[in-house]
Amino acid sequence: MADLIRPSGRAADQLRDIVLETNVTRYAEGSCLAKFGHTHVLCTASWQDNVPPWLRGQGKGWVTGEYGMLPRATHTRGRREAAAGKQSGRTQEIQRLIGRSLRSVVDLTALGENQLTIDCDVIQADGGTRTASITGGFVAMALALKYMREEGVIKTDPIQKQAAAISVGLYKDHPVLDLDYPEDSGGEGDMNVVMSSDGGFIEIQGTGEERPMTRPEVEEMMRLAEKGCTELFEAQKKAIG
Amino acid sequence: MADLIRPSGRAADQLRDIVLETNVTRYAEGSCLAKFGHTHVLCTASWQDNVPPWLRGQGKGWVTGEYGMLPRATHTRGRREAAAGKQSGRTQEIQRLIGRSLRSVVDLTALGENQLTIDCDVIQADGGTRTASITGGFVAMALALKYMREEGVIKTDPIQKQAAAISVGLYKDHPVLDLDYPEDSGGEGDMNVVMSSDGGFIEIQGTGEERPMTRPEVEEMMRLAEKGCTELFEAQKKAIG
Amino acid sequence: MADLIRPSGRAADQLRDIVLETNVTRYAEGSCLAKFGHTHVLCTASWQDNVPPWLRGQGKGWVTGEYGMLPRATHTRGRREAAAGKQSGRTQEIQRLIGRSLRSVVDLTALGENQLTIDCDVIQADGGTRTASITGGFVAMALALKYMREEGVIKTDPIQKQAAAISVGLYKDHPVLDLDYPEDSGGEGDMNVVMSSDGGFIEIQGTGEERPMTRPEVEEMMRLAEKGCTELFEAQKKAIG
Amino acid sequence: MADLIRPSGRAADQLRDIVLETNVTRYAEGSCLAKFGHTHVLCTASWQDNVPPWLRGQGKGWVTGEYGMLPRATHTRGRREAAAGKQSGRTQEIQRLIGRSLRSVVDLTALGENQLTIDCDVIQADGGTRTASITGGFVAMALALKYMREEGVIKTDPIQKQAAAISVGLYKDHPVLDLDYPEDSGGEGDMNVVMSSDGGFIEIQGTGEERPMTRPEVEEMMRLAEKGCTELFEAQKKAIG
Amino acid sequence: MADLIRPSGRAADQLRDIVLETNVTRYAEGSCLAKFGHTHVLCTASWQDNVPPWLRGQGKGWVTGEYGMLPRATHTRGRREAAAGKQSGRTQEIQRLIGRSLRSVVDLTALGENQLTIDCDVIQADGGTRTASITGGFVAMALALKYMREEGVIKTDPIQKQAAAISVGLYKDHPVLDLDYPEDSGGEGDMNVVMSSDGGFIEIQGTGEERPMTRPEVEEMMRLAEKGCTELFEAQKKAIG
Amino acid sequence: MADLIRPSGRAADQLRDIVLETNVTRYAEGSCLAKFGHTHVLCTASWQDNVPPWLRGQGKGWVTGEYGMLPRATHTRGRREAAAGKQSGRTQEIQRLIGRSLRSVVDLTALGENQLTIDCDVIQADGGTRTASITGGFVAMALALKYMREEGVIKTDPIQKQAAAISVGLYKDHPVLDLDYPEDSGGEGDMNVVMSSDGGFIEIQGTGEERPMTRPEVEEMMRLAEKGCTELFEAQKKAIG
Repeated sequence: MADLIRPSGRAADQLRDIVLETNVTRYAEGSCLAKFGHTHVLCTASWQDNVPPWLRGQGKGWVTGEYGMLPRATHTRGRREAAAGKQSGRTQEIQRLIGRSLRSVVDLTALGENQLTIDCDVIQADGGTRTASITGGFVAMALALKYMREEGVIKTDPIQKQAAAISVGLYKDHPVLDLDYPEDSGGEGDMNVVMSSDGGFIEIQGTGEERPMTRPEVEEMMRLAEKGCTELFEAQKKAIG
Repeated sequence: MADLIRPSGRAADQLRDIVLETNVTRYAEGSCLAKFGHTHVLCTASWQDNVPPWLRGQGKGWVTGEYGMLPRATHTRGRREAAAGKQSGRTQEIQRLIGRSLRSVVDLTALGENQLTIDCDVIQADGGTRTASITGGFVAMALALKYMREEGVIKTDPIQKQAAAISVGLYKDHPVLDLDYPEDSGGEGDMNVVMSSDGGFIEIQGTGEERPMTRPEVEEMMRLAEKGCTELFEAQKKAIG
Repeated sequence: MADLIRPSGRAADQLRDIVLETNVTRYAEGSCLAKFGHTHVLCTASWQDNVPPWLRGQGKGWVTGEYGMLPRATHTRGRREAAAGKQSGRTQEIQRLIGRSLRSVVDLTALGENQLTIDCDVIQADGGTRTASITGGFVAMALALKYMREEGVIKTDPIQKQAAAISVGLYKDHPVLDLDYPEDSGGEGDMNVVMSSDGGFIEIQGTGEERPMTRPEVEEMMRLAEKGCTELFEAQKKAIG
Repeated sequence: MADLIRPSGRAADQLRDIVLETNVTRYAEGSCLAKFGHTHVLCTASWQDNVPPWLRGQGKGWVTGEYGMLPRATHTRGRREAAAGKQSGRTQEIQRLIGRSLRSVVDLTALGENQLTIDCDVIQADGGTRTASITGGFVAMALALKYMREEGVIKTDPIQKQAAAISVGLYKDHPVLDLDYPEDSGGEGDMNVVMSSDGGFIEIQGTGEERPMTRPEVEEMMRLAEKGCTELFEAQKKAIG
Repeated sequence: MADLIRPSGRAADQLRDIVLETNVTRYAEGSCLAKFGHTHVLCTASWQDNVPPWLRGQGKGWVTGEYGMLPRATHTRGRREAAAGKQSGRTQEIQRLIGRSLRSVVDLTALGENQLTIDCDVIQADGGTRTASITGGFVAMALALKYMREEGVIKTDPIQKQAAAISVGLYKDHPVLDLDYPEDSGGEGDMNVVMSSDGGFIEIQGTGEERPMTRPEVEEMMRLAEKGCTELFEAQKKAIG
Repeated sequence: MADLIRPSGRAADQLRDIVLETNVTRYAEGSCLAKFGHTHVLCTASWQDNVPPWLRGQGKGWVTGEYGMLPRATHTRGRREAAAGKQSGRTQEIQRLIGRSLRSVVDLTALGENQLTIDCDVIQADGGTRTASITGGFVAMALALKYMREEGVIKTDPIQKQAAAISVGLYKDHPVLDLDYPEDSGGEGDMNVVMSSDGGFIEIQGTGEERPMTRPEVEEMMRLAEKGCTELFEAQKKAIG
């Protein structure tokens, strides 16, 4: 197996430049512009002082995720989903993933009957939009919860641990960390991994694109994901302050 | 009539701070982030080398506008139109306006069988999103056309004149220029005016919100709009370079 | 500039034959068949003794407009919007205009918690369907309110002034009043003007179709609209009786 | 069984006043306003010189029916189907019936590759709107075919026989002809019958509303329908001229 | 008229093999797999302890029918209606028929404020799916009501009589009973008949496909339907036990 | 950690009773009723001799999956997706997974310009419907391809290896194989694993429901999945024959 040269020149276990810029919009209770290289996702957390009908009266809150992509976030323009009249299967899959991931690190009882909607809108896409959404969405959520504690809406911090996500994949048969678009579209397989800051796996979604993946490959990819998420947890901590 | 004090402290005929930042996205053929004070609209122009079916074979091109608002662009979160399954009447009204306005200053024959889609996505909204969309959309379009000339797609510049838009309204019974959100929601009436750089009126959409407007008021508002658009034409020229 | 000859032979400031026929349907609380020449719009006003959810408990009423066109109202058959599964942007724009215009002349508090829906259905279309809708819709509304006073539903007349609408435009570079279809499709620009009977402007929606309009043209068009609306107010008074 | 007194005072086998007014719209190739008492349906036939994709190249034509009801055609306002975003099951059932019925009396080969769309729009509804639609729709179709022969589009008359429809029902346990709304909503059962002018049954749709119908009742209702359709065939002949 | 030979070799008045297999699913309160020859419909009855909003507080229950067809129930695959985003006119027509037919034999007051949904899903289709749905749907409903009596939800049996359905048609100009797909698609006309076990006609839906049907033909078809339904009532009794 | 007792009494690494019954419908080119215990999924493979527009002229075929659930497949009735007017995010996620999984073991070039649609309809659901769909869908696909070779549509077998799927999860903190509904809804996490018969991983979709999963747990779950899939590959071989 020849030595790996990634299109970006990165090492196999190297993240792209990660920027988590906070307080980027004027109105949201929490916000974060998450940049994973050229992938830019604007994440806002919006607080609402009630919960969906099926949860009312149980003293618990809810966290939900929504995802969208600006039509020209990509190399060629995509159709606006609002014009198409429905969200694609891919969009729905991603927003279900965002919601599940963020809920898994929040104590919904400590949240009280409050709802947080985490909107993740992709301004520019170069691979890994869902992992940037989860990583930045966590920061937006944490800032909104900070605001809610300061405003006296909630007493204690409902956050139990951090959640972050990264992609790993096989590129020219090498496991690599944090795929960009050329690697994502030209690789043999990829896996999106959502982790919690205590080292657990919240979600693993792996697909052998060109061929099935072997067990050793999957295990090496999980190891890379652990390394990547560890760095993302540090970046989140700095961003939240 | 008491002296007017606008919530922002501006003079009656004073625009907000206008910023037209260009080349803000990596992939679009032309782009412009239009800021009218706290109203921020990301405008991209996307080129496609064919036209809608009903226009094929006529040697002419087409320019169309699309409009969207991020769910938390506003003080309280709005429902995502893609999730609602349709674009609101307001959205459709605005994107029809953007398309008509920009087409009116372009020689569609000089464009050849090419289509430009101008996407105007509101990142933050403080009143006047449609006028920022048209003003910034013109810049994005001009940059895309420049790119197309440089690439040899078209021979001549299809732009015949500039188009810009501004709102005017009645606030505490005074005609004022470039309404922000407090003036827009608290005023007696407003008018969106789209002008061409030769001094003509492309579109006039006026509504008496609290009361009908008198003829002198309308005429003063048109005068203010002329002043505002003149300043916007200068800003566009600088942005396009 | 050559002397103007309109396709219909009318003078520049001459309306088409206007007929406002009342009580044309058996069930509606108020109804009016508005004919502007060959443009025929059936307007009905339907009373409902409750208001939309967001208005409940405020002691105020609501007036809303709906608009439709029979598939073969026009020269060539158009697709039925119910079959298409949605109302076009144009339809929504028009019904928002009808609602805003009629609400602007009604004291919603005097209406109590009642709702009026003004349905404007175009039976035959020869230009100016939205202005016939507003003008005839006002008559249908006034008749329904008369019925409601007679039935004791409301105590006082919520109507504060009349509302009527007319189109004006540029045809062969002359400002003309009340465009028919040949003038509408062949002219340089047009403007729909909604006025109140005290001489105020409720709505102005002008578009330069072939070229921008100059300020003097717009001002002359506003003058023509005033003349036209004055005549329409007289016709409405006769119709309502 | 007590003697029958119908709400309208009609005899058991008596139609309402039938009016088939032709050429009621300016643009349609054929039109007919069908009045069955207070039920008024505007029927237009629109010609198109091509056929649906699945029929192309077979040298045959097509006839299709569409049906709609103005929101305030009825005692209480119904929701506009275009606003609801879909046609109800009832509407679709009726337009399928109209299409099948009218196609069954037309030689589609003699029609050539032409399509006729018969729009039946209910202006006012007092029971029997589908039977008035078919009866009036036939007249509109015949007039459009006449026009097409005169224009040289088709050589021979594709109409093989007439089609008309009438409702029959059980009211206070008596079979009666041509139900109006009070009989329709208060009766025990009803049956819509579409016949051809050679005495055949094109469609029979009977429903026992309050109780099942007996065989003798059904047979008597079929006899009444034969009588009613015979009279409608005469009225159609006069209308078509 | 030559002697009739049906494709299946059956006599003119002979049903296909009828199987009504009960308790075929683990969860539904009542279920029946209805086989009319190669036509297989899975019918389930689901109980809900509340009624639609418009019926609340009246002490009455409701029975509703739903109908679907698996995409490959037929010779060539049909599009999945859930993917198409709407139910076809045919589907809606059939489910309205199922609901009306089953409600007509139930005492809705004896049902109390309970709702039964009868789902009829076609696993394999060889003609007559709607008649198999009604016949099997009745069995599923009866079993669910038995369960509800046993559970003490209702005191008395709301079923007043049985309902069953069969198709009859004209094949090579002979009236025949229980059409299979070759007869249905190749015949001159057909009629779906729903009967009650006291010999009444609940629904009659006849269509002359290739030509109108004569009165004697319709009457003979009604006679055949009576024979077929009599046999179905026996099969239902055995199935319910 | 206490000894594990599964609700079903199965050992931790024991599958439910697996039945793959073939040729269960009369019309599909291939079919398989896959039973994983009480979970029953009817899988059909339908052949079409053309491909989607975007693939035309490339000499390659396509395999796609669709998924549905009968309304009363579950303990409580679910809403019919065709009535709701759209497929849920969950349904779309599953059908995307089925399609990707089956395509990954097929040589699309050997398939020629043919398309196979694998419909997976859940008749009864007790957990694991997506894994039964993939496992049974593979059998239906293989049978359809056998038919196509016998008919001379294709020359060689496009199947490169088998695909099967199984769920694994954490129940009372023990990794267990092939979750049924009580384990699925009451467990701490689960993972759906799609494997190829050469031991590779095609898809891994794991979710920590109640808590994140540890790396050793994930690795043990992968081992269990390997065991389960090995048994499923045997069952598939026997079914295909």
